[in-house]
Amino acid sequence: MSFYYKLTVAYEGTHYCGWQVQDNAKTIQGVMMVAAKKVFGDSVTLTGASRTDSGVHADGQVVLLVGERKLSDYGLPRALNKVLPDDIVVVKSEQVDETFHPRYQDLSKTYLYSVCNGPFHLPKYRHFSMHFRHKLSLELMEEAAKDLIGTHDFKSFASIGTTVEDTVRTIYDIKITLSDSMYVFSITGNGFLYNMVRIIVGTLLEVGNGRRDVHSMPALLESKDRNCAGKTALAKGLTLKSIQYANEGD
Amino acid sequence: MSFYYKLTVAYEGTHYCGWQVQDNAKTIQGVMMVAAKKVFGDSVTLTGASRTDSGVHADGQVVLLVGERKLSDYGLPRALNKVLPDDIVVVKSEQVDETFHPRYQDLSKTYLYSVCNGPFHLPKYRHFSMHFRHKLSLELMEEAAKDLIGTHDFKSFASIGTTVEDTVRTIYDIKITLSDSMYVFSITGNGFLYNMVRIIVGTLLEVGNGRRDVHSMPALLESKDRNCAGKTALAKGLTLKSIQYANEGD
Repeated sequence: MSFYYKLTVAYEGTHYCGWQVQDNAKTIQGVMMVAAKKVFGDSVTLTGASRTDSGVHADGQVVLLVGERKLSDYGLPRALNKVLPDDIVVVKSEQVDETFHPRYQDLSKTYLYSVCNGPFHLPKYRHFSMHFRHKLSLELMEEAAKDLIGTHDFKSFASIGTTVEDTVRTIYDIKITLSDSMYVFSITGNGFLYNMVRIIVGTLLEVGNGRRDVHSMPALLESKDRNCAGKTALAKGLTLKSIQYANEGD
Repeated sequence: MSFYYKLTVAYEGTHYCGWQVQDNAKTIQGVMMVAAKKVFGDSVTLTGASRTDSGVHADGQVVLLVGERKLSDYGLPRALNKVLPDDIVVVKSEQVDETFHPRYQDLSKTYLYSVCNGPFHLPKYRHFSMHFRHKLSLELMEEAAKDLIGTHDFKSFASIGTTVEDTVRTIYDIKITLSDSMYVFSITGNGFLYNMVRIIVGTLLEVGNGRRDVHSMPALLESKDRNCAGKTALAKGLTLKSIQYANEGD
């Protein structure tokens, strides 16, 4: 008999080639599979909600685990964390019914992107942020970000070569905070194209630095041309914060 | 001709056997000496204000560098950071006169100690905090901490075998904040005995957990017995935040 578990997983992506299992590369899914097999046996499966890239972190990746052993909400994280390395932690487990799928459901995702602004990249932030040494204006970035909120064709903000046909997405909110030289971009949407968050941040940094007009976002969306947007910000600044499912209170 | 520089240095101590140079061990001072010799030549010397222990971090270690080359406040950090690994960063340099000594002067130091409270140690905090899974009361810890502020004989809070004769120190302030399951203890004093901050935190955690009476600090100070205090909290939760010198505005 199979049991279905919705896991919330936190990890530091620094030493992994992303979520998705690959031959000859250490991935989060690959390492989690080794741990899950120790607890559930060989028939266990894991499906991640988001295929985070190499170097990208998560506070709240959602993973569906299907296994032939019943474990409590308390016991499952304990059992898995005992056999996981300390840069991957199952922070929550809930038993769900077999209709739950971590991707094919109404959901929204929140990503954080951290930028350490100043002459030097502080050591304590170095794995979880990109370094940007030039001046930034919070106000200009906030102003430009407003024009990205809503439902738009985000083709300009997707990596060239993306195979997705429908490039229309909805961004519900972009918040930018500044504390102790660290800018944190919090972006929530119903889905994101490949590298979309990182290209949005790279573009907003150019606005914040005065190298791109604060009112240029509508024309940039309209262009549907990746080459018109800014650089893709580094992977290590990105964290998958949380995934909200339509039928949940949280 | 020798030039004297007061450097402010940030580092992650995870992969080092503390500040002080040692044979056959990688230390912050040792690695900084290799870098400093590349920039200043073999006659350069480095003196740290604080001999941080293995695994302890710094946001603002102060280091006196004496070298026979004149570099600007801007140029020195750039030159050193180019040849330092990315877990050690010189964040500030000021030329000082030869009377400046990083230790033998009126000063106060501020240490931060971080405790990740909850069932799991979150990966992003794992190198910069200790994990404490049991419940904690902020109010009880704040209440007990008040009795440690002021000038006291802190012998109960010094590692056994400490060779210092005078164990009287002054704590100016202890602040405890809680945010996102992370307790941060900020402790400022005119000097600290060996492991004093870590023993204070270990003791306050027992108070916060209800295993030690909130009003027991005066008797504990009075006992002058290390065995009466709590466990020494792990090194990795400790960060030397800053050092304030008497003749400075900051």
